[in-house]
Amino acid sequence: MFVTFEGIDGSGKTTLLQALAETMGKAHLCLTREPGDSALGKRLREIVLDAKTKGLDARAELFLFLADRAQHVAQVIRPALERGEMVFCDRYCDSTLAYQGAARGLSQDCIMDLNALASFGLEPDLTFLLDLPVSVAKSRMQQRNEAFEGRFDSYDGSFHEAVRAGFLELATRYAERIYVLDATRSLKELVSEAHKQLLARMPQ
Amino acid sequence: MFVTFEGIDGSGKTTLLQALAETMGKAHLCLTREPGDSALGKRLREIVLDAKTKGLDARAELFLFLADRAQHVAQVIRPALERGEMVFCDRYCDSTLAYQGAARGLSQDCIMDLNALASFGLEPDLTFLLDLPVSVAKSRMQQRNEAFEGRFDSYDGSFHEAVRAGFLELATRYAERIYVLDATRSLKELVSEAHKQLLARMPQ
Repeated sequence: MFVTFEGIDGSGKTTLLQALAETMGKAHLCLTREPGDSALGKRLREIVLDAKTKGLDARAELFLFLADRAQHVAQVIRPALERGEMVFCDRYCDSTLAYQGAARGLSQDCIMDLNALASFGLEPDLTFLLDLPVSVAKSRMQQRNEAFEGRFDSYDGSFHEAVRAGFLELATRYAERIYVLDATRSLKELVSEAHKQLLARMPQ
Repeated sequence: MFVTFEGIDGSGKTTLLQALAETMGKAHLCLTREPGDSALGKRLREIVLDAKTKGLDARAELFLFLADRAQHVAQVIRPALERGEMVFCDRYCDSTLAYQGAARGLSQDCIMDLNALASFGLEPDLTFLLDLPVSVAKSRMQQRNEAFEGRFDSYDGSFHEAVRAGFLELATRYAERIYVLDATRSLKELVSEAHKQLLARMPQ
């Protein structure tokens, strides 16, 4: 079973993913993220986050994320699923649609085709979308004082509003696959609700 | 005017490009290459050539070259053309079709669409294809003892034969745009022939 976690920066995806993994017991569980868990992904993550590449063209950025995805699916996700593991992945194709599509304005149809190519057609069985107001996400990130903060500072609020709206539109379009969680709630509540959903959708 | 130079490794593209640039006089001439002349391109070139990434998935590699192209066109080629310069580019879309398509087996139609996207639809006015037998290219590279040599050693001959055949097929398909040069001839003869072609095709 392939489960992805989506949402704007500061929505608590990573925290939920880890807490849910603890609850599930980590046996036969592969925890991963995009971009970044292959050797290539780590280098690409550096490039994308690097201040020097702030002049990065939107299409170049899109292709970098797709390169990472192709490598990640081939080297990490598919082998884990083939070994019978459950995969929890922090960001996947929906992020590309929300960030590069809805927010940066590249064609959604085009990104769907590119996502299919880069992911070898591998779709998640279940996606948790952590939804919350951009202002709340921003203040959370400022409190954590993360490396990501620079990104938030350089992006205007309207960019993240567009990303959030893009995710919510995807949740409407793929209502069967995408389960929306109200990320302003406590971690305990979120883990409990996500765990329930997960158990309900697991084979047998 | 946008001119590209294509051919297998060791075919002498770079040498011809530079000699032709000398002949033309370097004023209003932008010399560039793929991958590699933007800040992003240089980092991608490192990744692709890096031994550590030898397990690079074919699609990941394709997307990396496309990321570099998008950035290169947006940041280098298009601005130079808009300033009225002539651009000489060492490798471009045809390399992607020959290497990732013909040799690595990815769909040509798919790569054509991706090339159009990554290049913002910008096509060369003239392409010089330096054609020569793989064995000759290989022995030239061994003599030069280049950093690239490692690539040749790790690729089998049949890979480069497929790349060469891919280029020749493109030359048949785009006979108007692609001018094939017999790269076994002397540099002097090649420069003279390429220069004649260039002058014949220049506006006024």
